[in-house]
Amino acid sequence: QGALLKLLAGLRWPPPGRGPEEVARRAGGTASPALGIGLDSCVIPLRHRGLSLVQTTDFFYPLVEDPYMMGRIACANVLSDLYAMGITECDNMLMLLSVSQSMSEEEREKITPLMIKGFRDAAEEGGTAVTGGQTVANPWIIIGGVATVVCQPHEFIMPDSAVVGDVLVLTKPLGTQVAVNAHQWLDNPERWSKVKTVVSRQEVELAYQEAMFNMATLNRTAAGLMHSFNAHAATDITGFGILGHSQSLAKQQRNEVSFVIHNLPIIAKMAAISKATGQFGLLQGTSAETSGGLLICLPRDQAAHFCSEIKSSKYGGGHQAWIVGIVEKGNRTARIIDKPRVIEVLPRGATATVFALDNSSASSDDSSFPF
Amino acid sequence: QGALLKLLAGLRWPPPGRGPEEVARRAGGTASPALGIGLDSCVIPLRHRGLSLVQTTDFFYPLVEDPYMMGRIACANVLSDLYAMGITECDNMLMLLSVSQSMSEEEREKITPLMIKGFRDAAEEGGTAVTGGQTVANPWIIIGGVATVVCQPHEFIMPDSAVVGDVLVLTKPLGTQVAVNAHQWLDNPERWSKVKTVVSRQEVELAYQEAMFNMATLNRTAAGLMHSFNAHAATDITGFGILGHSQSLAKQQRNEVSFVIHNLPIIAKMAAISKATGQFGLLQGTSAETSGGLLICLPRDQAAHFCSEIKSSKYGGGHQAWIVGIVEKGNRTARIIDKPRVIEVLPRGATATVFALDNSSASSDDSSFPF
Repeated sequence: QGALLKLLAGLRWPPPGRGPEEVARRAGGTASPALGIGLDSCVIPLRHRGLSLVQTTDFFYPLVEDPYMMGRIACANVLSDLYAMGITECDNMLMLLSVSQSMSEEEREKITPLMIKGFRDAAEEGGTAVTGGQTVANPWIIIGGVATVVCQPHEFIMPDSAVVGDVLVLTKPLGTQVAVNAHQWLDNPERWSKVKTVVSRQEVELAYQEAMFNMATLNRTAAGLMHSFNAHAATDITGFGILGHSQSLAKQQRNEVSFVIHNLPIIAKMAAISKATGQFGLLQGTSAETSGGLLICLPRDQAAHFCSEIKSSKYGGGHQAWIVGIVEKGNRTARIIDKPRVIEVLPRGATATVFALDNSSASSDDSSFPF
Repeated sequence: QGALLKLLAGLRWPPPGRGPEEVARRAGGTASPALGIGLDSCVIPLRHRGLSLVQTTDFFYPLVEDPYMMGRIACANVLSDLYAMGITECDNMLMLLSVSQSMSEEEREKITPLMIKGFRDAAEEGGTAVTGGQTVANPWIIIGGVATVVCQPHEFIMPDSAVVGDVLVLTKPLGTQVAVNAHQWLDNPERWSKVKTVVSRQEVELAYQEAMFNMATLNRTAAGLMHSFNAHAATDITGFGILGHSQSLAKQQRNEVSFVIHNLPIIAKMAAISKATGQFGLLQGTSAETSGGLLICLPRDQAAHFCSEIKSSKYGGGHQAWIVGIVEKGNRTARIIDKPRVIEVLPRGATATVFALDNSSASSDDSSFPF
């Protein structure tokens, strides 16, 4: 199970604290078609009676040790761009894969099918199937996909209709990248020594499990509820962090609005690690996430209902959501207030006593307005 | 202009004589979704009144020195899977790109925009546009894309309806991989010494230019003519060579047919190089091609018309086609006859005197039946 990251020792990329989109940006992303920070999916009007083609692609390098979970995460991450537009169906999925040359035949035969199975299982959970793709050999393992759907106009919600008075809801806690990196540091005494005063090994293990579980969770339920609760716009939170994606979403609005974020739901203890290392910018909203939650603009009177509905056992009981901010009159920008309230989200199965939290905001259930 | 391959010195992959699909196959392709050697594109029936989603993806590593041409080739190669189904339109193109970490900032800023421009220009020639994609950093440069179209039933030709008596037509000469490799050997005295008795430097230069031009040529005209001349099935020739793709196409037939290939149109002198090195299998039909031509099953009385029509100046004058084989009664297999006739296809602009051909079959214009 630890084989994937072991393989990546020495090959690993991106460097800790850098998400794939960040890497892309540094790698000359401006010259690229740059879907990443604009619309999550492209929407192409078709020649056929009002139908639109909605499509997205994403691929990246492994960031968890478990190949099966890595496959699930990659698929969830691709589908998420459709879900951000309130689309709950996917007509087709292609898988993009590279197999690392530095794997032995044995490692390859063990790891590759598990990644593929994880990817396929997540696709199936999304109501679609993998019908094709491309596989190449490469120094690094790459996994990703292409999700495509043909929609009628009522099936998707263009992310441009926020109005003053809306509130912002987030459907997964932040801190995935911090958790993944901290987990690697468990085996790196030098790195570990810099954070061990603020976090225990057990806390990191639990945070990592929680991050992995969250990254592998489809945003499909949230996408469906966007319709039920009349969402005005949404995006998914990935490589540019909650602030980056909020700014991007704000820029696309038709009305003169701005987004203000007051609350940051974060996997417990990850804020402390971010502060101790100074390298992630989690409290500034710039820490990259992988397969993060949806950030959804909802009418104020609907948001609390959304947050309680998504937790319902009819959706499996694995979802949470928090009200994190508001929509004000403004010039299409987004910001985080000076001292945002950090909501420490306890990993599932963890008790509060395991987590020695240094303030009283520990919560895995918060959809109240503190403002 | 030589910067791309220079960069790839030491990084280069696949090794000479191996196409990307070959690499994929050796890299554990059996575990992959394996579109490569089955249907060229996936065809997904949609929920919307008889429409189908047809989609394909391909990505690979650079194989020519010119970044702009590399972009064109990558795009032509992706679109080719749609063209093989007689589809002439493409509703959307996504670009998949990785930028090599080993590039300097300067190299990256010079090369990347050229590759992207080549890709976009070819997409435009295909009547589509690049609306998105993904860019990552990687040890090696990767370029590819995803082509998608939503079709009515009459817009595509399922590759399964060959009948006894059909003939097989090929729309680009073979030998691209040999030409690309031979061109690299010009700078490698040891490799060059093994072929210099059968080919001159000038012949290799011209063959390389011809291969590059052919790989960058869209199969769109051929796709359109498949409808005009009532094609029964087609595939494009890529990593598995003409024999591999013929076998795959034969396997998909509804009727009890087999394909027999009698003629091999090959870029002039590439057959000699393949023989001299013994490593490509060009005369056995197993040499990988990149962005090769379409192999089309046509009714016997239509094939010659197809071959003359495609050369018409109304399609730009850059196309050729040859009758290469026949469809017999059989058990869905394909073979090349013992001593196939090699048609030495002269590079454009080359005169026969430059090419010291050792037999009388030199031709860039042959659509006769030798059998």
